[in-house]
Formats: sequence, C-alpha cells, structure tokens
Amino acid sequence: MSASLLVVGSVAFDTIETRAGKHQDVLGGAATFIALAASHFCPVNLVAVVGANDFPAKHTELLASHGVDLEGLERAEGRTFRWSGVYADDFSSRRTLETQLGVFESFNPKVPKNYLKSRVVMLGNIHPALQLKVLDGLNKGVFVIADTMNLWIDTTPDLVNQLITRVDLLVINDEEATMLTGERQMLVAARKILAQGPKTVMIKRGEHGAYLFTKETVFFAPAIPLHDVVDPTGAGDSFAGGLAGYLVSQNDTGLAAMKTGMLYGAALASIAVGVFGPEPLAEIDRAALESRVAQLRRLVSLAG
Amino acid sequence: MSASLLVVGSVAFDTIETRAGKHQDVLGGAATFIALAASHFCPVNLVAVVGANDFPAKHTELLASHGVDLEGLERAEGRTFRWSGVYADDFSSRRTLETQLGVFESFNPKVPKNYLKSRVVMLGNIHPALQLKVLDGLNKGVFVIADTMNLWIDTTPDLVNQLITRVDLLVINDEEATMLTGERQMLVAARKILAQGPKTVMIKRGEHGAYLFTKETVFFAPAIPLHDVVDPTGAGDSFAGGLAGYLVSQNDTGLAAMKTGMLYGAALASIAVGVFGPEPLAEIDRAALESRVAQLRRLVSLAG
Repeated sequence: MSASLLVVGSVAFDTIETRAGKHQDVLGGAATFIALAASHFCPVNLVAVVGANDFPAKHTELLASHGVDLEGLERAEGRTFRWSGVYADDFSSRRTLETQLGVFESFNPKVPKNYLKSRVVMLGNIHPALQLKVLDGLNKGVFVIADTMNLWIDTTPDLVNQLITRVDLLVINDEEATMLTGERQMLVAARKILAQGPKTVMIKRGEHGAYLFTKETVFFAPAIPLHDVVDPTGAGDSFAGGLAGYLVSQNDTGLAAMKTGMLYGAALASIAVGVFGPEPLAEIDRAALESRVAQLRRLVSLAG
Repeated sequence: MSASLLVVGSVAFDTIETRAGKHQDVLGGAATFIALAASHFCPVNLVAVVGANDFPAKHTELLASHGVDLEGLERAEGRTFRWSGVYADDFSSRRTLETQLGVFESFNPKVPKNYLKSRVVMLGNIHPALQLKVLDGLNKGVFVIADTMNLWIDTTPDLVNQLITRVDLLVINDEEATMLTGERQMLVAARKILAQGPKTVMIKRGEHGAYLFTKETVFFAPAIPLHDVVDPTGAGDSFAGGLAGYLVSQNDTGLAAMKTGMLYGAALASIAVGVFGPEPLAEIDRAALESRVAQLRRLVSLAG
C-alpha cells in the first residue's frame, strides 16, 4: 500500500464575495483544499466533520473520486460549518460577515486506526487544543505539518506555542508570523519561531510567494504571475496540501524535497485562486500541473 | 576608454523620518543613487543640477571618488532640491511633508558633448518633457532605460506615454504600473505597457522583489530577506542603477544580462535600505556585493 497523508481540519460551506462575483455555499474549508491538493500525489486520509443532513453527496463523491478516504469524515447532527466573507477589490484583506460553527463547534477529531499508518500529518487550522489532541494520538516519528491562524494566536497563545514546539514544519502566512513574534521582518520572525522548536518554517505571502526558513537556509518560491484572481479562498491551504502530498509521494521530508514541494504547492495555489470553489484544483491533470511547475522554474532561471 | 553610463536625474537633500530615526539634509536624489550604484560596474556621466552655494564638497568628492564624472553636474544660483517625508512604520507608504524644488524647478538638462559616447542612458524620474528633450539630443542607437512616477502619470500622461514609446527598458514600481494601465495584476499591466513600445518592462515591488517582462518572457528577481530596514529612500534607484551599470559593463543588453543585472540591482538595493543616505551603497566592496548576489542565487536554488 502506498504511503498516505493524514489531513485534519475543517470542511465547510463558504459564501464568498469578491470583485469577480458572489457565490453561495461553495464547498470550502482548509481540509478540503489541503486534501484535494495533496490527492494529486498520494492517497489522503481525511479527519473532519460535516452535518448529517446538509452535506450533499456530490461533495463526498468529489473527495472520494480523488483518492480521499472518508472513513474519518464524521457526520454529526446539526449543520455543516458555514463561513461568509467579502474580499477587498485588491484582495489585500477580507472581512468576515458571518461564521456559523454548526457541527464544527463540538468537533472532536477521531483518527481511525487505519489512518495511523500515515507517516505525515497536515494539521489544518483548527483550535490548537484539538491539534494537540490529534498529535497525542499519533504514533511516534510522524512528520507533523501544521497551520494556525490569528484567532488562535490572539485567544490561546499558550496552546499555539505548545503546538509549535511539537511541529516539524510550520506553514503560516506573513500576518500570522508577525502576530506570533511581534516581528515585521519575515527573516526575524522566522528565526524566533525556529528557536521554539520547528526545524522548518514556511511563510506564505500570497501573490508574493512563500519562504522556507531553517536555521541554516532561506529558500524562496515565487508565485505564478496571474492574469486574474477570482477568489483567494483556500489558496494557502492548496499550497500546503500540494507540498505535503509531494513530500509523502517522495517519502522524503528533506530540504530539497521541501523546496520542490513548494513549487507544486505554488502551482496548485495558482489554480485555486482562478475560480470559486475547489473543483478545478481537484480536476487539474498532471501535465497541466507539471507545466505550471516548469513555469515557476523558468521564472527564476537566469538563462537568456 | 571603457564604456560608460549616462545618468540624468535629480540630486537632492532629503530629510527623512522612519521608525529608525530622523535624518536631516541627507544626500539623496534619484541620480545620486543610480550613479553610485552603477559606479561599481562602469564610469558614470552625471547630468543633474545643484545649488551654487549649498552643495558641500564632501558630496561631490563622494561622487567623483566613485568614478562619477561631474562635468554635467550644473551649479545654478539658488538652493539644491530638498524633499522631506515620513515613512509608515511598516514602510508600506510614505508621506511627503515638503518639497522645495529650488534650482530643480528650472532644470534644463544639458548633456556635455563628451557624454554622447555613452551607449546606455538611464533617465531617472524627472519631468517627462525633460526626459524627452534629453533623448532628442542623444545619438541614435543609445539603449534607453527610464523611470517615471505617479506625479507625471497623473499630471502629464501624454508626455509619459510619448516617453514610453521611445524607451528600450522601462523600470517602474508596481503602483506606477497600475496607475499607468489601470491594471492591478502586474502581468496584465506589463503586457499593456509592452504593447506601447518598450521591449522590456521591469516592475519593482520593494521587499517583494522585481519582475522583468518581455513579450515572450517573465523573470522574477527576489529581494534579499533582511533583518531590518532603516530607510527605503533610493532603493529602487539603486536597483535600476546597479542593473544599468552591469549592462554597460557587459556591453550586453540581452535577456540573460538583464536577469543577472537585476540580481546586482537587488543586492545594491538591499544595501541602500540598511542606512540613511547613499554612502554605504558607494562604499560596499565588490566581494561583499558578489556575496549578496550569491545569496540571491541560493535563495531560489532547488538544491537541498
């Protein structure tokens, strides 16, 4: 049996307004984007929760048809997590209009026994207490990738700091890095985080690309210059999921694999921002994906 | 005699306030930064104007001692151009407090005969009518690099558009690219500008690096991740000057030379932002400069 990625996080309905339009109850959630991005590289074991009666079969079919195992997708009484928000015209910020936690409020992630064979786990952005609980239940030696968000850094900093000490690779955005450390310069923020334990920190900067920091190295993966952005929701999770899936497929969490994995992540993020919803992220074929990775390599090639 | 770069632009005194402090009457001006950055690669012929009585010998000595020819530095009755401004704490914006044009108000750039041998000209950001006038006086076949700014795009768009048709390489920042074209996506903005005539457009994005666009190619040069930024004044001009000087030194304005030139430009920009004033930009030795360029190459290297 091939190696798999364990993904824990949110599955949601998003209602999103951008300069490109407004879409209601689009399939969303960090775990959705992570899982579908990773599914290009390896089987995915998904731990998440949705409502028992409001989550349509087409969504579970989309996930299942892309190699996402749904044994860990709990169906609980109540409604699926819903988020709605509006992006600024230049996509530099977004405003949350409404959050309905629904079944997510009492989410208590249960990792099926069968999932414990995954050697890499990607903890999407959920309450750090739940992320820690998941880690407690995993076998030793699992490679831990985690994300977090401003809300938890603000409300439960101690738990976030506890989480960070147990993570191999932290993948956050620049605002979160600044909020975690009080440092605006990414290099300084990254070094402060590295001092807390993770061997590697990646800082995502949206259209400005992403950095990888270790104690010895800095690497930069650019973003693909795009004609248009339609909806940035899930782009960062697509990046992380693509990267994580690539690492699993290579059975390698070394520096070179991480760097190349970031290019796959950036390529998938460039797909994710082009439309509302995660379907094109799932549907892109391998040749088109490789073509975007080749574009990223050319983007920094010094050849004339 | 080795090839030289012709630089036309402003020499000024800047009074600058950033989170790192406040400095009064620092040597500044686009032509100053361009010339000193380029001087690492080739002799520079400078066309600019300063006040007859308020421009200290130490500044002309700094320029002259770094291979900047001052025959074209006019000394006019009146005061040297003065600018003062305050940067936001995160350096994302700056506010002009005062502009005293002084002798710059009636600046009428005169290119000494001896300077007509320069095969590359860098037109710093001055009124586009003056940039056009300088071009009228140059020999055919000179490679033209030009910058402009929001003020001219706003007040004299026809002249800016006229300038653009006569430029080989336009070097502007992202805000200017958007203002010129109405496009927020750099790829789209660049293609609109390329349609106006320049074979190459470079778009600078400060700490986020710089793009080179031709009709067939996109290249991205990252910026060096820094521990601290003290004063971004002149960083963009240092970038452009380093690039221009490198092209002259290689006697090559092809794509490969431009790409490598951008790394030298980025390296020099990283020096410029580290202090108030242009002195360290002038003083950095070649080994330290090469070390920063090597750092930029490593930054995007996929090797583990």
